[in-house]
Amino acid sequence: MIINEVTDLLQMEHPIIQAPMAGGVTTTELVTSVSNNGGLGMIGAGYMTPIQMREQIREVKEVTSNFGVNLFVPNEFSVSQNAMETAHAVLEPLRKELNIQQDGSELPEAKQFFETFQAQIEVVIEEKVPICSFTFGIPSKEVMMKLKQHSIILMGTATTVREAVANENSGMDLVVVQGSEAGGHRGNFIDGHEESLVGLMSLIPQVVDEVSIPVIAAGGIMDGRGLMASLCLGAKGVQMGTAFLTCIESGAHKIHKKAILHAEEDHIVFTRAFSGKWARGIKNRFIVDMQEHERSFPDFPVQNHLTKSIRKTSSTKNNKDFMSLWGGQSPRLAKIQTVESLIKNIMSEAK
Amino acid sequence: MIINEVTDLLQMEHPIIQAPMAGGVTTTELVTSVSNNGGLGMIGAGYMTPIQMREQIREVKEVTSNFGVNLFVPNEFSVSQNAMETAHAVLEPLRKELNIQQDGSELPEAKQFFETFQAQIEVVIEEKVPICSFTFGIPSKEVMMKLKQHSIILMGTATTVREAVANENSGMDLVVVQGSEAGGHRGNFIDGHEESLVGLMSLIPQVVDEVSIPVIAAGGIMDGRGLMASLCLGAKGVQMGTAFLTCIESGAHKIHKKAILHAEEDHIVFTRAFSGKWARGIKNRFIVDMQEHERSFPDFPVQNHLTKSIRKTSSTKNNKDFMSLWGGQSPRLAKIQTVESLIKNIMSEAK
Repeated sequence: MIINEVTDLLQMEHPIIQAPMAGGVTTTELVTSVSNNGGLGMIGAGYMTPIQMREQIREVKEVTSNFGVNLFVPNEFSVSQNAMETAHAVLEPLRKELNIQQDGSELPEAKQFFETFQAQIEVVIEEKVPICSFTFGIPSKEVMMKLKQHSIILMGTATTVREAVANENSGMDLVVVQGSEAGGHRGNFIDGHEESLVGLMSLIPQVVDEVSIPVIAAGGIMDGRGLMASLCLGAKGVQMGTAFLTCIESGAHKIHKKAILHAEEDHIVFTRAFSGKWARGIKNRFIVDMQEHERSFPDFPVQNHLTKSIRKTSSTKNNKDFMSLWGGQSPRLAKIQTVESLIKNIMSEAK
Repeated sequence: MIINEVTDLLQMEHPIIQAPMAGGVTTTELVTSVSNNGGLGMIGAGYMTPIQMREQIREVKEVTSNFGVNLFVPNEFSVSQNAMETAHAVLEPLRKELNIQQDGSELPEAKQFFETFQAQIEVVIEEKVPICSFTFGIPSKEVMMKLKQHSIILMGTATTVREAVANENSGMDLVVVQGSEAGGHRGNFIDGHEESLVGLMSLIPQVVDEVSIPVIAAGGIMDGRGLMASLCLGAKGVQMGTAFLTCIESGAHKIHKKAILHAEEDHIVFTRAFSGKWARGIKNRFIVDMQEHERSFPDFPVQNHLTKSIRKTSSTKNNKDFMSLWGGQSPRLAKIQTVESLIKNIMSEAK
């Protein structure tokens, strides 16, 4: 048994949070299994419409009252003519190869993302979601205040000490520190990509010394060894992505799960080509072919929009070449197992 | 008290190895203080001539019989006309700015590095050095066998599971795993630079699961928290560089020590510009100015030779702009203190 201020605050039996992986991974079954087995299940709602979000929240609430929702904080972005031309020139041949008709869905404007975010916040409040976490930045003072008025527990994401301090100053109740080991999108929002790649061995103790809110460690943690190491370094809990992604209850594509099980730690690299934001995933044909262009592509979420049909078609065809196979740096520790077995194993190793 | 096969094998009271930082940091005072305070002091002999090496080994032996020597395993390198021209064009203005006369020292041939290494090995054997560690590769079978015949304990360096397995297969008695957090030169010798940047949270448990020799963790470890976390992850000891670099007994330039104390974790970046090999150090004018050219410079050790007078003059003038200010990702945890105090603090936190 590990009891501390985080297990108390988040009403968990174990200090284990399931990372809010967006894009269909965090099924209701995954989220509720995690919470029912003593951890905290999180809905990765970053890409969801307010309607989709409300639907899943209601599904989850039928099974458990303890869960969280993660949202992407929208940022201003600019789209240069050059970047769009590069993306078009490079992606069009791939669309042809995959027999994708010009899908014609219009490029969303920045305004829309801000409006969606506001609507998502309303859903969180209306549905009385107990815990809300954020990635890619910190919401406005107004939003933070509104959520606090409804006693929602707020969790921010940081990749450096500076970002952790900004989270604390904004009123976050906890901060998740994302080490360079982490899979998926980087959460840096003040510091640049290279500068914000700090390993957890360095990141946790330096953040813990500078903030007074509890710190949750994320990145490469897969088992009881990682949990115990994080606690030694001063974290009060862990947030695990890849370990839950390969669970039976997760909605990740079977090809994605399989790719992680067969990956080696040095095959999981950074790319900007899928979404316009740096993210860690398993090296495949798309990552390799796009490497020389990736710095020229438009920013997130524009590039993400432009590659959507490619990723989707690849996934439908069970073709791993063009799928975003996000994963952290510890693939050799991944297993296909139930959430119950994963959490039980962690806690038995952590004794 | 932490007792395990590594403290037994290396005859240390505590599982703490001082990293063999080359270039004048590992003074006899530093090395012997570490060993006399229950750790293992290491002479960073990578850049030393066999004569210099023998001299320091004899000095150290007057104080302690327990210490190690680290050597750089030489590699073939090629020097293209293009790379030399880039280096000349970019470095010459800096030499002018620093009033450096063309120093005229000839570019060493690859052959010379292999000859020096052979001579260094002879010194290790003749002086009955108890422990010898290696960076940048694995020595030939002949060298490994010769050292083993003299019962010298051998320690290799790895940055990935694959490199750790190669070390074990070569006959190393221990392997130091260098996480992406580590300061100074990268030890990768099979995998590429980006691919081999694995954080310790991921690297330690994955290596431990694949090799049967004891694993020593290196990178960003500065205090008892880092030691305990490394042990949780399966390492049997730690090797610490930056933490010893800022000790009073270390030979690092006072400007170097001061720069670490004032650095933040996101100011310690990778550069290839000083030596032709990727290494982590504090961002200064040289790193920033060279960034656009760094991938075009000649390989180690040629670039290292070409920047020597610039680094040396900068250091003599107490000008941090052109010094190689190596350091790991945990500068906020660094202190100016004695070796005795550092080791005592670590072990009191590690209880």
